[in-house]
Amino acid sequence: MSRQMVRPGGRSARVQASVHAAVRELASEVGRDALTVPLVARRAGVTPSTIYRRWGDLQELLSDVAVERLRPDTAPEDHGDLASDLTAWAEQFLDEMASPAGRAYVRDALLGDPDGGNAGRCSAYAAEQVGILLARATERGESTPDVETVVDRVVAPLMYRILFRPDGLDASYAGRLVAGILGHGDR
Amino acid sequence: MSRQMVRPGGRSARVQASVHAAVRELASEVGRDALTVPLVARRAGVTPSTIYRRWGDLQELLSDVAVERLRPDTAPEDHGDLASDLTAWAEQFLDEMASPAGRAYVRDALLGDPDGGNAGRCSAYAAEQVGILLARATERGESTPDVETVVDRVVAPLMYRILFRPDGLDASYAGRLVAGILGHGDR
Repeated sequence: MSRQMVRPGGRSARVQASVHAAVRELASEVGRDALTVPLVARRAGVTPSTIYRRWGDLQELLSDVAVERLRPDTAPEDHGDLASDLTAWAEQFLDEMASPAGRAYVRDALLGDPDGGNAGRCSAYAAEQVGILLARATERGESTPDVETVVDRVVAPLMYRILFRPDGLDASYAGRLVAGILGHGDR
Repeated sequence: MSRQMVRPGGRSARVQASVHAAVRELASEVGRDALTVPLVARRAGVTPSTIYRRWGDLQELLSDVAVERLRPDTAPEDHGDLASDLTAWAEQFLDEMASPAGRAYVRDALLGDPDGGNAGRCSAYAAEQVGILLARATERGESTPDVETVVDRVVAPLMYRILFRPDGLDASYAGRLVAGILGHGDR
């Protein structure tokens, strides 16, 4: 997590935006493993000490950039009922997180994250998206599990298998997890 | 994962044992963040190039050592029935993995693991222990879920929350996960 609070539009926010942009550009040009703090600083037009002061080291900067990339930029699609909504969301979550880029971001987010704040933000993003789906279902009059139950039964197995046990991970597995939680009486 | 196959008792196995021991000793003496390949090599009585040749870099070595520390050295205890066995195992798994040392090992195992082999070994250890409990229950005539279902419903939520969402993680949460899987009809 960035070491300073960032006021939108201020100098600090501009530095953050240019450093994040430099990381993204250089990662696609020279590859993530070739990144160094001086290289990023030169591209961003800041001094290396600005980066060290704000982020501590390269891993913490990469963790911050990764979390930013993992932030959903739209609410999940509305398919008319909870089973369809949650299935579509779980399939898309799996697609994004299990892709080579997604795996790299998740690893970066976890690894440069001494206080666990960035991992917590990743999990909060998923829980927020799930919360939107559940609130929509409640408005329709559907009975729903709670957010933490969906985290345990859908988000956790998907993320655990992406990180530790990737064999057999596909859309039908995501669908079975959702069916498992909506098909039983444990709401 | 170590880059060479290791024949037990051979020179390669002796090098591995002394390098692993050097990492463990130095980590407790000077701290994990102060470790370097030359420091580990000197303590282990090998050349740095031996370490680079076999492990690639410090991160991959630390990943190997971490997985070794996460390997269970005994079969899980027998409490007479599956619910008690699985509850005790889940509580102990949570205790070990959520401890500061456990978290550090899990992070190290994931970090220096370009091919995912070490993360896979961590998951295989958990699945093996669960498999022993389930086989024991089957012998007793109890009906049991399968290993992958226990991974999804117990192991995955515990590990996901340890890494991403640690609030409210305690023995009663582990117990609820086990009750959830044994209390319903989804076997």
